[in-house]
This record gives sequence, structure tokens and C-alpha cells, in this order.
Amino acid sequence: MLRSCAMRLRTLGAKLARRPGAARRLFSSEKVIRKDYALPNPSWTKDLRLLFDQFMKKCEDGSWKRLPSYRQNPTQALHEFQARFVDSKLKKEEQMSKAQQFTRSFEEGLGFEYVMFYNKVEKRMVCLFQGGLHLQGVPGFVHGGAIATVIDITTGMCAFAEGVAMTANLNIDYKKPIPLLSVVVANSQLQKIEGRKLFISCAIQSIDEKTLYTEASVSQPTTEGRPDKNSGQCPMEALFIKLDPDKPLT
Amino acid sequence: MLRSCAMRLRTLGAKLARRPGAARRLFSSEKVIRKDYALPNPSWTKDLRLLFDQFMKKCEDGSWKRLPSYRQNPTQALHEFQARFVDSKLKKEEQMSKAQQFTRSFEEGLGFEYVMFYNKVEKRMVCLFQGGLHLQGVPGFVHGGAIATVIDITTGMCAFAEGVAMTANLNIDYKKPIPLLSVVVANSQLQKIEGRKLFISCAIQSIDEKTLYTEASVSQPTTEGRPDKNSGQCPMEALFIKLDPDKPLT
Repeated sequence: MLRSCAMRLRTLGAKLARRPGAARRLFSSEKVIRKDYALPNPSWTKDLRLLFDQFMKKCEDGSWKRLPSYRQNPTQALHEFQARFVDSKLKKEEQMSKAQQFTRSFEEGLGFEYVMFYNKVEKRMVCLFQGGLHLQGVPGFVHGGAIATVIDITTGMCAFAEGVAMTANLNIDYKKPIPLLSVVVANSQLQKIEGRKLFISCAIQSIDEKTLYTEASVSQPTTEGRPDKNSGQCPMEALFIKLDPDKPLT
Repeated sequence: MLRSCAMRLRTLGAKLARRPGAARRLFSSEKVIRKDYALPNPSWTKDLRLLFDQFMKKCEDGSWKRLPSYRQNPTQALHEFQARFVDSKLKKEEQMSKAQQFTRSFEEGLGFEYVMFYNKVEKRMVCLFQGGLHLQGVPGFVHGGAIATVIDITTGMCAFAEGVAMTANLNIDYKKPIPLLSVVVANSQLQKIEGRKLFISCAIQSIDEKTLYTEASVSQPTTEGRPDKNSGQCPMEALFIKLDPDKPLT
């Protein structure tokens, strides 16, 4: 499975590795003229604003960093990815210029309202998330696919801190449904690196950490024994493959 | 894990069981005045229209059935679920009436364009899916969270044919990225029922079945040995918990 996946990723991302550190620019102060959606707007509840303020304070000493977020992908590295990755037929149609980042394609407050903070030393990514009314699954609650999306972006950005990567495996246990318009915290952490394989955990909890909405089962035989620091439980984990053709997996 | 999940679901869905067969109305001819989104629209590509026509022909002898799809949940059973499930505070705010089904909350052609067909005898659900430009993950390709969503709705509806159920576990292997605007087929099948536990597989392939975009790893120890009929591989599997308080799991 990994062999097959790695082969494709190596081919697709071959040219990217010529720009080492490109992915890290996601976390740099590159000049941006587009709208940054990872900032408070009128749809944010008091809970989300309070949490945002708490994390912004943590950023003051440089231990944490807020990640900006756009409708189009912000980094040159990703644009290069597109240039080499996207089917030429699609590019000719010039439709791709109208494409928008899935999680930012909703009107304010109706979709994914979130902001992510990264701690470089702890290799930990936190996503503060408020699910809008257009993310409904069973009546009154956030859709399981939307929850999977929050997990994917949080663990994905945690992986990106290590280099350009794509999700290879996602194993999610849904423990309790998340009410629409509530605020939850996705806590993601890099657990292990094996060659190009990144193993990242994630758990979604209530603000007071008393309710665990989403947690883990360990699906990769190589990843056993990584209990969550606080609960002793193994949280949801995602496997990412780092794009680095100098060290092929196969 | 299952014990905890089942306890919550039993509590939440307690009253639902008083209306046996309610979930099956999803597949009935109940009178509906809302717009059905699971029908061709101008954004559908030729590929999606051709596939739709093929499956509509299969419906003529009654072996397959097209599932309608709405922005609000169509069944009385789900409305009752909301009445008992949603936090009273949220209900007071009357915001929930503005909630929309996640997968139908996009403008025509920009989000999830799909239609599902169900084969009752084979216990198999097929979803024909075209990913719009607002579902972008890495440039030019459908977001991993959007793919997880397609898997969740396809396996979820397959589960609903057996009774009201919620996703408990989702284990996804991403093998190859899906280009935006391309048409793929999600093929889902009920594999096993153990009490209230439903085990459902799903694989996403290209129309010609030559490309496997998403497949499985078996994550539940009770579900080994269910190879895919065609490929011999074990496709992605989802675990659902059926809401049936007469037979508690705990």
C-alpha cells in the first residue's frame, strides 16, 4: 500500500524537492495581499473570540504562531505543485483559476470558521473551529465529512511544517456528534517520522476538554504505542507521505 | 470505544425506535415538494450524464433505485431525531431552521455534484460524483476532506437502508488524488452486521475502473477477511452503529 502510494507521490512531487524549505514558507512572514480568513469576523461566537485571544497571547513570546489562511493556496511551493501536477487539459480550460480552497469557500459564518496555531518546539498544531449552519449532517450537528475535513487540515498543516506532504491514511473514530455553531479544539501532534512517513495524531475536544468528540484508533502496524499525553488514549492518527525524491520509499 | 459510543447513541436515539422503518422512507416514494438535487443540471459533464443515464436504465426493472437528495433532511425520522437530539438552547435560537445539508450547500456545479443509486438485493450503494471548483485541496485536486465526505455519505446511506445509523469509524487510504471536475464512482457495500454494528466497504474508482483513487485498510479486529469482489483488495471500510435501543450494545 505505502509502496504504491509513495511511488505515485514521488513521481508527482519530483520537481518540488528542488526547492527545499518551500513548504516552510507557509509559516513565514511572506507578503500577502489576499484576504486572511483566519481572523475574527462578526460570525465568531464569544467562545471562539476568547480562545483566539488566548492563543494570540501565547504568540507574543514566539512559542506559538498563528497561521494565515486564504481562499487560494498561499505558497509558491504549492503553485509549483499545481504547475507540475495538474492535468494539462484542465489547465487549458483555464477553469482552475476559479478554484477555491474547500474550507474557505463558504460565506462568512456558514461554513468552516477556524484559525490554526503552531508550536514549532512541540511540533503541535491547534485548530480552533466553529462549524457553521451549512455544514449540517444529522439535524443540528456537524457532518462527519466536515469533521474529517477539520482533522485533515489540522494534521495536514502539522505535516507541512516538516515539508510538502499529502495525506495517505486517515483513521477516525467518531465518539460524539459536534453541535452546529459550537466551538471545539482540534489538537494535533507529530508523533513519529520514519523516512518520508509522518505519523500525526489528532483529537477534537470541547473548550473545557471535558468532552472528547473525535479520537483515535491506531491503524498502522508501525505506529503502536503512542498514547495521548493527557488522557492516556491513542487519539486519531493520520499518516502523511513527505515528498522527497532524494530518499525514495520504494 | 464501541461501548461508550453505543451508550451515547442509545440515549440520543431512544425515541426513534418507536417508529420502526422510518429510515426506510428515505427510499420510499414519500411526497416531496423541495428541490431534488440528485438530478442532472447544466454543470454536469458529459461523463456524469452518461453514467446517470446508464444507472437510470438499471432502475427500470426495479433492481436499482435512485435516491433523491435535498438541502434539508427529507424524512420525518430525521426530524424526530432533531427534536430529541438538538440542544434546547440551540432550538430556542431558531437558527437551526437555516441549517443546510453540508453536501448540498454549494452553488450549482461548485461543490458536491452527485447522485446515489441503491441496489436492495445486493445491499450496495453507488455514488456518481463530480467535484466542483470550490472543493479544492492541493491545487487542481479535490480536498481529502471532501473525499472523506463522499465516502461518509455513500456508506452512510448504505447503512441507512438497514435502519437509522451514525458513523462510528472511518478508515481511509488515499491512493491517488482526484482531479477537480473529473467524475468518479464510489462503490459501497454492506459487508457484515453484528448486532447493531454495520460494516460497510467503499472504494472510489475512475469511470473505466482502471484507476483506484481511494481504498481500504481494515481497522476493526472483528472485520477481517472481506476482500473486494473484483480486485481481491480490502476496500475502505466504515463502521456504523445502528440505533436500536431494544438491543443495547452495552
